[in-house]
Amino acid sequence: MILGRLAVVGLGPGSAVWRTPEASARLAGATDLVGYGPYLALVPELTPPPVRHEFDNREEATRAQFGLDLAARGRDVVVVSSGDPGIFAMATAVVEELHRADDGRYRGVEVSIVPGVTAASAAAARVGAPLGHDFCCLSLSDVLKPWAVVEQRLEAVAGADLVVALYNPISRHRPWQLGRAMEILGGYRSPSTPVVLGRDLGRTGEAVQVTTLGALDIADVDMRTVVMVGSSTTRAFKDVDGHTWVYTPRAYPEAPS
Amino acid sequence: MILGRLAVVGLGPGSAVWRTPEASARLAGATDLVGYGPYLALVPELTPPPVRHEFDNREEATRAQFGLDLAARGRDVVVVSSGDPGIFAMATAVVEELHRADDGRYRGVEVSIVPGVTAASAAAARVGAPLGHDFCCLSLSDVLKPWAVVEQRLEAVAGADLVVALYNPISRHRPWQLGRAMEILGGYRSPSTPVVLGRDLGRTGEAVQVTTLGALDIADVDMRTVVMVGSSTTRAFKDVDGHTWVYTPRAYPEAPS
Repeated sequence: MILGRLAVVGLGPGSAVWRTPEASARLAGATDLVGYGPYLALVPELTPPPVRHEFDNREEATRAQFGLDLAARGRDVVVVSSGDPGIFAMATAVVEELHRADDGRYRGVEVSIVPGVTAASAAAARVGAPLGHDFCCLSLSDVLKPWAVVEQRLEAVAGADLVVALYNPISRHRPWQLGRAMEILGGYRSPSTPVVLGRDLGRTGEAVQVTTLGALDIADVDMRTVVMVGSSTTRAFKDVDGHTWVYTPRAYPEAPS
Repeated sequence: MILGRLAVVGLGPGSAVWRTPEASARLAGATDLVGYGPYLALVPELTPPPVRHEFDNREEATRAQFGLDLAARGRDVVVVSSGDPGIFAMATAVVEELHRADDGRYRGVEVSIVPGVTAASAAAARVGAPLGHDFCCLSLSDVLKPWAVVEQRLEAVAGADLVVALYNPISRHRPWQLGRAMEILGGYRSPSTPVVLGRDLGRTGEAVQVTTLGALDIADVDMRTVVMVGSSTTRAFKDVDGHTWVYTPRAYPEAPS
């Protein structure tokens, strides 16, 4: 029996200039691509063309199991993620399935994770260095965790003055959560705190916006946006050429009171 | 007058397979490379060879200013970082210098940040998906922030049950801080909490170790190690082929009490 393999590959955000050689090499050898449609669309034409298995966004466990089953049948499978597959993406779903399948059905299948540039890194790079000091990455989705946990975490990281990067900030089914999150952060931070919105990084229609906690319009945010809210030390400024920069200084002056 | 440009480039962790095409392209055109010696050593021979300006690790502001001054004299400068330049690396230092230089001395110089794969993403990929749920990245260095702030942040993120990735965990000048950090996390997490140590990712001598909060030996950690401490839900298991995996499930069962 020929054993296959499976890699969960991070494409990086949108653009191929941010795709690692390891990711490209793994895609080039694949017999099967498994992924959410818009992510599969980021993969260029390949020769010979792999079979493309398109799934809905919410079917992560199904996608993981489907990919592992293909690999167990000898295929060379790539499960496609955008950004970094280990950050709010498909790596966890695949490892969870491996853990569940303790009956030996995936014995000998070589499973690996190919890291990528995550969306927050790319959005940060566009404006400078908002993540240059201690920060956290939180998902605002309460599909798989209680909203009370999200609120508790927002309170904790706001109190500890971390920069906050929010993934999955809003969706059709979760319309009010982002507003509530900003309300919580606003309880700890000044309205002038810089906020960075990065949408469709590296893709056609990329939009990066620098605003403030006080001026943020929730309507400017959708599910493809990463939202970064500064700490008390994060600064925004216009340089002499009119370019807007955001950074969080390396030095932290004193313990917050 | 010919104006130059400066890019702060993230090489990714060690290996060239994790270096983005954008980073490679920018290196290929550079007239000058500015960086900490061990990072410059990661840059391959280039033709024509750029001038290599080597600095000590602690001279971040000097390095940034030196690079910007070169660019203002018309050079094509790359400030070299490992990993992602925006995460505890050189991007902040360069943007800080830009902010300080409000006298127009860098007018017209094109400054950009080229993102990369950060060390935590690469270390996570080696073992599965420990960062698959909410997490934070904290620097344990108290060179530029008071230790009291570090402790306060550790308490906050431990209480909020985030996975914790620690950068700059230890050095010759900061020998006891990591032990104290583990003591704080141990006040909130069980001794069986998975801990991942990733050292020299993608380089000769790469070492990735999975241990627990109770069994961690501080002597296994040095300044080139990224340390990841799981949340209450992070799991480690051996698959049927004997490979050890670590992941943090996507689902969070209930609010921590």
